[in-house]
Amino acid sequence: MKITTQYKDGNYAIDVSRGILEDKLTDYTSSYNQVFYLADKNVYRLHKNGKLSFIEDPILMEQGEASKYFDAFSNLLESLLEKGIQRNCLIVIIGGGAAGDAGGFAAASILRGVDYIHVPTTLLAHDSSIGGKTAINSRHGKNLIGAFHRPKGVVYDLDFLDSLPDSEMLSGFGEVIKHAMLRDQETVDALMMATKDGIDVNTVEPFIIKGIETKMDYVIKDENESGVRKHLNLGHTLGHAIEYRYKMPHGIAVTLGIYAALHISNALNQEQTFDLKRYYGYFKGLGYPVEELKTIDAEDMISLMTKDKKNQNTDRIGYIVMDSIGEARFTEIDQKLLIKLIKNLKESL
Amino acid sequence: MKITTQYKDGNYAIDVSRGILEDKLTDYTSSYNQVFYLADKNVYRLHKNGKLSFIEDPILMEQGEASKYFDAFSNLLESLLEKGIQRNCLIVIIGGGAAGDAGGFAAASILRGVDYIHVPTTLLAHDSSIGGKTAINSRHGKNLIGAFHRPKGVVYDLDFLDSLPDSEMLSGFGEVIKHAMLRDQETVDALMMATKDGIDVNTVEPFIIKGIETKMDYVIKDENESGVRKHLNLGHTLGHAIEYRYKMPHGIAVTLGIYAALHISNALNQEQTFDLKRYYGYFKGLGYPVEELKTIDAEDMISLMTKDKKNQNTDRIGYIVMDSIGEARFTEIDQKLLIKLIKNLKESL
Repeated sequence: MKITTQYKDGNYAIDVSRGILEDKLTDYTSSYNQVFYLADKNVYRLHKNGKLSFIEDPILMEQGEASKYFDAFSNLLESLLEKGIQRNCLIVIIGGGAAGDAGGFAAASILRGVDYIHVPTTLLAHDSSIGGKTAINSRHGKNLIGAFHRPKGVVYDLDFLDSLPDSEMLSGFGEVIKHAMLRDQETVDALMMATKDGIDVNTVEPFIIKGIETKMDYVIKDENESGVRKHLNLGHTLGHAIEYRYKMPHGIAVTLGIYAALHISNALNQEQTFDLKRYYGYFKGLGYPVEELKTIDAEDMISLMTKDKKNQNTDRIGYIVMDSIGEARFTEIDQKLLIKLIKNLKESL
Repeated sequence: MKITTQYKDGNYAIDVSRGILEDKLTDYTSSYNQVFYLADKNVYRLHKNGKLSFIEDPILMEQGEASKYFDAFSNLLESLLEKGIQRNCLIVIIGGGAAGDAGGFAAASILRGVDYIHVPTTLLAHDSSIGGKTAINSRHGKNLIGAFHRPKGVVYDLDFLDSLPDSEMLSGFGEVIKHAMLRDQETVDALMMATKDGIDVNTVEPFIIKGIETKMDYVIKDENESGVRKHLNLGHTLGHAIEYRYKMPHGIAVTLGIYAALHISNALNQEQTFDLKRYYGYFKGLGYPVEELKTIDAEDMISLMTKDKKNQNTDRIGYIVMDSIGEARFTEIDQKLLIKLIKNLKESL
């Protein structure tokens, strides 16, 4: 399956399928003088005698989020320059969202920008394959330093997902759920049906593709994140606070955040639009610890939310609510009201 | 005097005059939520009780090129984030070309890009006020990591030039000479006449403005440096090698490189287009150590040139020659021939 981005210019293809890695990469690399491979060291260790055996002498990146700290980033740049990278070279980044973020920012800034291809190896990375955002972390927060720099292509070989641990599948699937929720009721119903007995890569494949398409729709409508792109933050305002406080994987925290958003949407709209029992049962059945929402401290969560760079106004908290499946809406909720809403949510569990 | 850039979009004003700093800055800063001042620590020390007394609590940058190393750069980013910079803030960078490079790259990458104003404090910085290039240095060479990120404005208050040491004036004036050479014979003659007794800020002012205009013409014709923008490298191919080997200030080495380029142009064109004696006498009279070209090692210079990121083909060296004043041309010179040409130059001195 191939998706092509729909920007005004600078478009690229996202190929999603099994077993496509080596062939697709050859299509890209043949037009460059030299190719530099960056690989998450854990991914490379797992696949160096298998799917990645054709790669010689990759530059290994620190695993996951560790690649996004300044020292790791400067080492990465120096390694590329040490090996003699020039403007007419291509960088291929193999790894999850963090590798894409740090490697993409390296590609953006080395020699003021060279081309790159991303090879996502996690389910979560389907989300970052669109949008062109690259970043590293500061001592003061995640993703605070970076650039907008689109890849020349994304080669998403689903074989990599077979070796993911369950918690990573569950985390990545959180964003798949989010994209379905932002799309329409039909997609959500089909997704819930397809995964009622658990998350299987082959069953989920069409929903990954739909997720990429949904995200693309939002990104293209609003490349500078001033308007509807905010809807992609569904589940993230509370999710980020939970992720930070309870060290929970990103997409798992987001899924708890989505459940909270449905509850809060019902409350604000004073209608039982969303069958909360049904979603609770579905999330719980897949393994999301929804019941832990009972233990969060509402005041603490709010205090973390106000540190988020998307909530610069401290009296009211920007929040994505849903009027129905497929109809998200940005609103600002007074802090005191939000505390009350979170307390009600806790009591409902 | 006010110059406005002529890009397709994203244009900005370059104000060049004495005593304009505070008023012009106020025009810019009033439309932002918050302003962060970055200042070269030496410049700030010199002017904190004078021209810069209105600035409270600036972030001090390492002096000159020291600001362009990775540690200094990451400290700069962390300081900005520590102070709570947000997307709707403005950064004002006060310092020479190095401060503009490092500060501009900080502005480009913090929160994926915030607006900035450059306040150049050296003569050399008139050159970097156009072009939108920002960069820091790698262990493997200068300016290898960076971004294209244009300022929202340049406020060039010439009062700062009064406190420059002679060697810095001489260095900056090298680029003024280069821009005149790329423009036309009339400008070169007028410049030589105006500065026959030395370099004075007030006399040089109109030539600074012409220099900015000339650079802008080139940059706009060729924003991606694939064609005519290369002409701006006049004097730089050999100049960079001399700068590196003999630790000579940039613009002084470039001026030696310009003299060499005139000599080489005469030789390649087999015509005495350029009156070498006249230029030698002029450069020497201003204080440029042109005679030191006699001591350079031709093979060593060539070996340094092939490491330049603009000379990726190792058999032939890209070089800017002049057919006449105002008519520069990019050519590739065989290494052996270039060694011979440099040796001839040395013998001529």
